[in-house]
Amino acid sequence: MTKVADAKLSRDGERNFLWAKAHMGALTNLAEKYGKSRPLEGVKVGVCLHVTKETSVLIDALLTAGADVKLAGANPLSTQDDIAAYLSTRTDVWAWRGQSPKDYNWCIGQVLGARPEQLIDDGADLHVAAHVEKAKGIVGGSEETTTGVMRLKAMEAEGKLAYPVIAVNDAKTKFMFDNRYGTGQSTLDGIMRATALLLAGVKAVVVGYGWVGKGVAMRARGMGARVTVVEVDPVKALEAHLDGFDVSDIDAAAREGQLFVTTTGQKHVIPYSAVEKMKEGAILSNAGHFDVEIDVKTMMSKAKGVKEVRPNVDEITLPSGKRVYLVGKGRIANLVAAEGHPPEVMQMSFANQMMAAIRIHGEHDKMQKRVYGVPAELEDEVARAALKSMGISIGAQTREQREYAKSWEI
Amino acid sequence: MTKVADAKLSRDGERNFLWAKAHMGALTNLAEKYGKSRPLEGVKVGVCLHVTKETSVLIDALLTAGADVKLAGANPLSTQDDIAAYLSTRTDVWAWRGQSPKDYNWCIGQVLGARPEQLIDDGADLHVAAHVEKAKGIVGGSEETTTGVMRLKAMEAEGKLAYPVIAVNDAKTKFMFDNRYGTGQSTLDGIMRATALLLAGVKAVVVGYGWVGKGVAMRARGMGARVTVVEVDPVKALEAHLDGFDVSDIDAAAREGQLFVTTTGQKHVIPYSAVEKMKEGAILSNAGHFDVEIDVKTMMSKAKGVKEVRPNVDEITLPSGKRVYLVGKGRIANLVAAEGHPPEVMQMSFANQMMAAIRIHGEHDKMQKRVYGVPAELEDEVARAALKSMGISIGAQTREQREYAKSWEI
Amino acid sequence: MTKVADAKLSRDGERNFLWAKAHMGALTNLAEKYGKSRPLEGVKVGVCLHVTKETSVLIDALLTAGADVKLAGANPLSTQDDIAAYLSTRTDVWAWRGQSPKDYNWCIGQVLGARPEQLIDDGADLHVAAHVEKAKGIVGGSEETTTGVMRLKAMEAEGKLAYPVIAVNDAKTKFMFDNRYGTGQSTLDGIMRATALLLAGVKAVVVGYGWVGKGVAMRARGMGARVTVVEVDPVKALEAHLDGFDVSDIDAAAREGQLFVTTTGQKHVIPYSAVEKMKEGAILSNAGHFDVEIDVKTMMSKAKGVKEVRPNVDEITLPSGKRVYLVGKGRIANLVAAEGHPPEVMQMSFANQMMAAIRIHGEHDKMQKRVYGVPAELEDEVARAALKSMGISIGAQTREQREYAKSWEI
Amino acid sequence: MTKVADAKLSRDGERNFLWAKAHMGALTNLAEKYGKSRPLEGVKVGVCLHVTKETSVLIDALLTAGADVKLAGANPLSTQDDIAAYLSTRTDVWAWRGQSPKDYNWCIGQVLGARPEQLIDDGADLHVAAHVEKAKGIVGGSEETTTGVMRLKAMEAEGKLAYPVIAVNDAKTKFMFDNRYGTGQSTLDGIMRATALLLAGVKAVVVGYGWVGKGVAMRARGMGARVTVVEVDPVKALEAHLDGFDVSDIDAAAREGQLFVTTTGQKHVIPYSAVEKMKEGAILSNAGHFDVEIDVKTMMSKAKGVKEVRPNVDEITLPSGKRVYLVGKGRIANLVAAEGHPPEVMQMSFANQMMAAIRIHGEHDKMQKRVYGVPAELEDEVARAALKSMGISIGAQTREQREYAKSWEI
Repeated sequence: MTKVADAKLSRDGERNFLWAKAHMGALTNLAEKYGKSRPLEGVKVGVCLHVTKETSVLIDALLTAGADVKLAGANPLSTQDDIAAYLSTRTDVWAWRGQSPKDYNWCIGQVLGARPEQLIDDGADLHVAAHVEKAKGIVGGSEETTTGVMRLKAMEAEGKLAYPVIAVNDAKTKFMFDNRYGTGQSTLDGIMRATALLLAGVKAVVVGYGWVGKGVAMRARGMGARVTVVEVDPVKALEAHLDGFDVSDIDAAAREGQLFVTTTGQKHVIPYSAVEKMKEGAILSNAGHFDVEIDVKTMMSKAKGVKEVRPNVDEITLPSGKRVYLVGKGRIANLVAAEGHPPEVMQMSFANQMMAAIRIHGEHDKMQKRVYGVPAELEDEVARAALKSMGISIGAQTREQREYAKSWEI
Repeated sequence: MTKVADAKLSRDGERNFLWAKAHMGALTNLAEKYGKSRPLEGVKVGVCLHVTKETSVLIDALLTAGADVKLAGANPLSTQDDIAAYLSTRTDVWAWRGQSPKDYNWCIGQVLGARPEQLIDDGADLHVAAHVEKAKGIVGGSEETTTGVMRLKAMEAEGKLAYPVIAVNDAKTKFMFDNRYGTGQSTLDGIMRATALLLAGVKAVVVGYGWVGKGVAMRARGMGARVTVVEVDPVKALEAHLDGFDVSDIDAAAREGQLFVTTTGQKHVIPYSAVEKMKEGAILSNAGHFDVEIDVKTMMSKAKGVKEVRPNVDEITLPSGKRVYLVGKGRIANLVAAEGHPPEVMQMSFANQMMAAIRIHGEHDKMQKRVYGVPAELEDEVARAALKSMGISIGAQTREQREYAKSWEI
Repeated sequence: MTKVADAKLSRDGERNFLWAKAHMGALTNLAEKYGKSRPLEGVKVGVCLHVTKETSVLIDALLTAGADVKLAGANPLSTQDDIAAYLSTRTDVWAWRGQSPKDYNWCIGQVLGARPEQLIDDGADLHVAAHVEKAKGIVGGSEETTTGVMRLKAMEAEGKLAYPVIAVNDAKTKFMFDNRYGTGQSTLDGIMRATALLLAGVKAVVVGYGWVGKGVAMRARGMGARVTVVEVDPVKALEAHLDGFDVSDIDAAAREGQLFVTTTGQKHVIPYSAVEKMKEGAILSNAGHFDVEIDVKTMMSKAKGVKEVRPNVDEITLPSGKRVYLVGKGRIANLVAAEGHPPEVMQMSFANQMMAAIRIHGEHDKMQKRVYGVPAELEDEVARAALKSMGISIGAQTREQREYAKSWEI
Repeated sequence: MTKVADAKLSRDGERNFLWAKAHMGALTNLAEKYGKSRPLEGVKVGVCLHVTKETSVLIDALLTAGADVKLAGANPLSTQDDIAAYLSTRTDVWAWRGQSPKDYNWCIGQVLGARPEQLIDDGADLHVAAHVEKAKGIVGGSEETTTGVMRLKAMEAEGKLAYPVIAVNDAKTKFMFDNRYGTGQSTLDGIMRATALLLAGVKAVVVGYGWVGKGVAMRARGMGARVTVVEVDPVKALEAHLDGFDVSDIDAAAREGQLFVTTTGQKHVIPYSAVEKMKEGAILSNAGHFDVEIDVKTMMSKAKGVKEVRPNVDEITLPSGKRVYLVGKGRIANLVAAEGHPPEVMQMSFANQMMAAIRIHGEHDKMQKRVYGVPAELEDEVARAALKSMGISIGAQTREQREYAKSWEI
């Protein structure tokens, strides 16, 4: 009932699982708590996530809370085979790196064939596949990503959603922490690994001042860079200015910058016309999910020459003879050149996943067939578990204060 | 048709008006723009605001846009008489410092007696008074404060609101900037003026991590203080932790702190039991609107002795013999010991006020009798005006990008 | 044997003395320690210092250590009369604000007439006067300022110095702390009091990157300003660059800056030619000792108009019609517009003064007639006293470590 | 006349050389300048340095200035074979990774056998070997490291130094930049690569507050860590306190810390007794040159178990059952787990090396047989070259200012 690349990798997988677990206290705190009450006792949960060391800690928590987990990988290329091997010693797993599309669908089919009551998904492929089969026996589920949530909302809008789904993606304890602290650090980490250059004094241009841009700008400054923010939303641009960053448009920034990082989720925020204005030696990198933020395609089509000068760094000679450098071919730098989010960050969204699973199990009959946000009290429990795992005590409002707060609402 | 304390103060008032105007470019940019189209030509606008140098710049902008302004002060004690004198050379003003409640109401009556079409208010006293008279001839208005907005929403809930109101208070370009950058700086400024102490190395305890708390914590760190945040909301507490601050409950913080600043809007967030735990020499101050955040009353009732040791600093000898120091009797430190918000901050909310007035004039017949937020496109115009006044160019989305953004929404 | 302005101010003086004393723990710790051994028992010490609240804490410490103090003010205009009144209840004082040059010299004469064995001086006027009288009976002394040290070194070079002098001015625990943390904070404080403007987002130009410049740049950044450093020394310029500041020459900086602060000790580091390049509304201020850093004289001679727009802020209309603003007439901003160094900073140099007095008393017969630096072990004692007053424990090297350190020296 | 591991690696070496060269503008600026005047035309220079990509840029610069370079590696294990291969296409090289002691000495012998007039050394092995042969024909040299300088000073003290040596190690443009910005960044980089953990919110303990400690503390804070400094020198401890760091002794810090970094150059600054007090999961790392700062030996001898949990991270189970984690076996983290100093940092000391070589050639007959510091005007030229390579203009003192500065010296 399991298919992995190499079961002998199990010990390596356990080692990586333990390292991650030691740094995901919010999740293990919840696991410990629910390991006593076992609110998911006997509940069959179908899971489709990237099979990484962090995911293994969620699977461990779900098992501890009593669930019967059936796991497939969320992407043909993202499975860590040692982790899959380790998890296969504890539950049913169908996941290996380097699947064909057919393999991938077969794995999802195995999960659904086990007749789960709930689904936990990343990208909504599992949810969509379940709906093809009319979602028989499924009472609810959750979804990790923006893309997945959009697909599910489209299904809801068409009246086709067959069960309630909690959009973990929209939790404050996900996007505020993942994007700002997680991507902020790991993007800088990726750039340092790729280039080994000094950041002190460097003129860094951060394109976008959403949560990711804020995180990257803050950390670049923290390493001594001089940061310019490019942002077309005037309110965010003003915020960047008052946070003490230089603010300008992409054309002016292109002339000044030495290191560029895109963080917008938008297409061509560094157009080729900006690349032409850059200084000799400028370095371009991307922190966004897709590799569309820099217009790499046009740049490559115009280039007089392209060569790899370091792992993950290509030198591109422009028609003018000027050279610029591209990190990781414009793909997401923290995954390409470093290790993605630290486990301390992933613990927050996975703790939300776990809370969502418990909530769905207990409340699904009171819920409608739609996409829900994460209830504030679940987020609070996640945040409290994280604080507790850090040994931080925060106190609470007094009764008198609760009444004072209400008196405002009259 | 005017009543001020001393018309001869007009030249001083003009000097202060000009200083403020030079630092409120967002507002003066809008004034310049609307000085050509004059969208408020002949519109009678009743205004009830604190008559300060910053307010005079709003009045100037409204007059420039063609409005006929009738002005009363929003508080019996807050009028700057030189400003009132200067404004009385340009329009009708009923405002002076040190009014009786009767005077205050008389002034409001004068404004309403002039039959305004619109009202701009701070605290909703003018709106409430207008409703007593059935709001005859009034087509809409705006409101600056949280308190005022709550009163108006209560009226809306009871079905008694007689015209649409725009809640300027809720604009991002107000609360994000006012609270964080404005109160952040001016609270530190007030504390330095009151105590003249070195902040470098000081253990500062910031109670609350909302926008004001974030601003105060950020600026205290910027002056070299070591900052502990006390926050009972677990998500905010976690955010403070990841921003690199120590986080603890008030009891633990009380034992460590040398300087305390409350920023919560809540009552007794520094209870007397915490004061008893503090170190000899601890300094207590408040950045919140009301003087309830520190339990001053209990502290004073228990004190063995109280004496003023510097202007705005009282030394309180506790029963144990330990001494603590209270800034400005626990009242809002940036107003008591410094000059409140800098004009660069006030320009944002006043620019929103101006945009709201124009919007009400043009759209009131399409609006319902309820409390509206500030429309995003008005905020954007305010933010653009601010950026323009700073000479900052930010560019814009391309057509291709707008389409790419929409493709997500499928 | 005393002459002060008004003895009735003594209670006010005591209040200010106590406030300062509570924040000068390094000095009071030493006072407590030497209050037991009384190493200055009966030693007559002539003192010529600015009679401020901080100085009163040094006088208290010297008295506590057994000294017999005779005090004159170091400047005809700097005496705080309440402090002089209070100190006159404890020892002999000749000091009041607003002296004629004749009065000033008379006071110094009174101190010398009391036949002190040691002198503590600020500017070397007391030392010079003592030499006129052949320094009869004087075994040594100390000096607080750069200017005074230079005069004494000139005397040493000419073979005219009659006794050993310890240059407290050169202590690391003075210049590193005074200049960086003290002037850094208090200059920003002065600028905020004078202008009440928002610093967040402002382009601040700090001229000079010595200790004062480092302090001002660090604190301006801490308040959210975007800082450009102007520095003609290439090594310091490079340091500023790697600290993440923009670096440029004064001409380029003049075009960009909104707030200028000079910190060099040099003449005309903002020449009139730079002022002409500035933007409308630029604010000029000086953190250096003398008012020569901005070429105020030329600016005033060219101005079309000068008017005070706020206390300590003059508006200067240039021939081009552009207006710039000058804080405190170009005089040292932290003293003109705020309260100078915080007591926590002054405690360091005054603790060095006290240690120097004890050292001179004990060792003068082994010392030569020259200007000495502060011995490292005295500095260490001062730093330890400061740390102790803050409750900070730092541990010590082990014997093994001391030996390991020596092994390097072979 | 050359011996390298594999000449075919030359193209890879050239690629790495070019990457480094593009980021060492100070050095290439000097090379360009002296490529015209060729002040080292025909001068035979013996070089013993770590054969890295950065060193290849120095060799290139020396060749460009006309020198005839003979190169050996400074350590049997540090040669990058591709760089050696590339350099062997341009000059004589004897260097490969993995030499026996005999090989190593043979290479040095080859350099000396070529009869160089000058020596550039790292650790003084080349200098010492030259003296064994009476330093025949050698007119002077330079030295890169502290260790080497100490050996040469010992030789000078014994009257055995046969020619003048410039101690590049002591240049401000070396230690201030290398240690603070270079080690600061690269140590954090190494820790992130080794552990992949989130730094935001982590309690980091930096042991030592010299230049390295300042750099590490500054960058750790910049990544969001909460930093405690442990420092036994009271003046430096006070500086850390006023820079806004928590300061404590190692025992107290051991109880609080989650990540420890030693930066002292001292032995056992984290003794085993401190390790015993640490929290479960504490991470220990070292930024200092030698692996003596953490008492690894005692820890290992007491451990119940040791296992590698990630590359460069060992888990050590203490007798109490508590686990701590050691990065890179306690060896210098930036070299073990990252790539050492960025080229932008190395350019400064290598530019000093080049200036020293030119100075020695031109002035050796006026110099004595002793160890010299780097003259201020050479440092200035290096700093100016660095600034120029960054496009930074800094202006210069006017004649009037030079005179004003002198007037102080009277």
